[in-house]
Amino acid sequence: MASKSIDVCLTPELMHLYPVGGRTVVVVDILRATSCMTTALAHGVESIMPFARLEDCLAMKNADFYTAGERDGQKVEGFDLGNSPFEYMDDRLRGKKVAFTTTNGTQAIARSAGADEIIIGSFLNLSAVAEHLSQVQNNVLILCAGWKGKVNLEDTLYAGALVEKLVNQFEPECDAPLASLYLYHGAKNDMNAFMKNSSHVRRLARLNVVKDVEFCLTADQYNVVPILRNGAIRI
Amino acid sequence: MASKSIDVCLTPELMHLYPVGGRTVVVVDILRATSCMTTALAHGVESIMPFARLEDCLAMKNADFYTAGERDGQKVEGFDLGNSPFEYMDDRLRGKKVAFTTTNGTQAIARSAGADEIIIGSFLNLSAVAEHLSQVQNNVLILCAGWKGKVNLEDTLYAGALVEKLVNQFEPECDAPLASLYLYHGAKNDMNAFMKNSSHVRRLARLNVVKDVEFCLTADQYNVVPILRNGAIRI
Repeated sequence: MASKSIDVCLTPELMHLYPVGGRTVVVVDILRATSCMTTALAHGVESIMPFARLEDCLAMKNADFYTAGERDGQKVEGFDLGNSPFEYMDDRLRGKKVAFTTTNGTQAIARSAGADEIIIGSFLNLSAVAEHLSQVQNNVLILCAGWKGKVNLEDTLYAGALVEKLVNQFEPECDAPLASLYLYHGAKNDMNAFMKNSSHVRRLARLNVVKDVEFCLTADQYNVVPILRNGAIRI
Repeated sequence: MASKSIDVCLTPELMHLYPVGGRTVVVVDILRATSCMTTALAHGVESIMPFARLEDCLAMKNADFYTAGERDGQKVEGFDLGNSPFEYMDDRLRGKKVAFTTTNGTQAIARSAGADEIIIGSFLNLSAVAEHLSQVQNNVLILCAGWKGKVNLEDTLYAGALVEKLVNQFEPECDAPLASLYLYHGAKNDMNAFMKNSSHVRRLARLNVVKDVEFCLTADQYNVVPILRNGAIRI
């Protein structure tokens, strides 16, 4: 029996069932908030400040922040950046601070308040996060951002991929880690084909961001572990 | 494009996200409430009245009802019947009324109030329910009872099995029907093996009800469609 445990909250709407005290929470919004954050920090952004509300985020322009705002898959008018990871591979952002708000991802971060440690997870830094979790003593909760309160495929698959890496060291606490793991087992040999019917991939395909989706499903592009401390995410 | 749609609510805690007006809701609690109800009605019980609260259910003794009460997998003191389907294959129950309350299943029924039609689903009557749904004009919502608000494997697998039977006639509305379907694809060749690690199966194994679990995972034992009308479930 493993001495640490792992659980998965499939949408922020269920977070009242999962106590976070003393835990490390891994927040994941594969398409595309946490994939963007991982990419940005790996490419030299100094820090990312997440905001649940658009207006709070936009106001950070006055404090010399770049602002990133997405709602319903599209960049919001007035913001410097949207929600494509490729926008964050930009030398002009090196050493800069970014204020960030998205439909689901930053809301999920807000729901993790009170956790011992809050980590930003994505396929892009899958192994780095797994390695970090195996080092700390905390029990782990993976929080899937989902889509407007509902469960989505891509975040659940990430949860399954992370559980797979940790299952020898962590005991699953309920059925959600198992369901995620089994779903990932069925998907992992061709994630892009598996995802082609998902509601968010179809939504994004209409917005012409197929390249984003493919990139966001790629494991281990970056060896970084973004951690939220004092309101800002840094590596 | 199918003209009817199908959705899956993975736990009653998410029901506020799923409008039920005009829909047929299929309530499922495989281990073991809806499996028991299906069995009881197939074996001649006249009707089943679901209660969310133990005391309301027990009070029905005074109205000449048999009472069935389960909490945390065990029969509750003072009730006539527990939550094993084999208890309901009893000639003494033929033509009788049963008042029923369980940890999750009857709570899920309560959350379906307002639906156009409320159906009781289980593997035991899988094809009968699928056939019924293909005949009615309503969109369909499968409501998984889960375990104390959390997602469970067995109800999600049932949702996947039912989606598989209907996917040519119904358009999935979000990712939950897809996730359920893919999970079921990975499980269907050996459901008992797949389920052996699930939290509820392990819970029930301690209570020595392995035979119940095996029976509840068996498809198409009964050709009945239990429907809730005016507070009572009948076929």
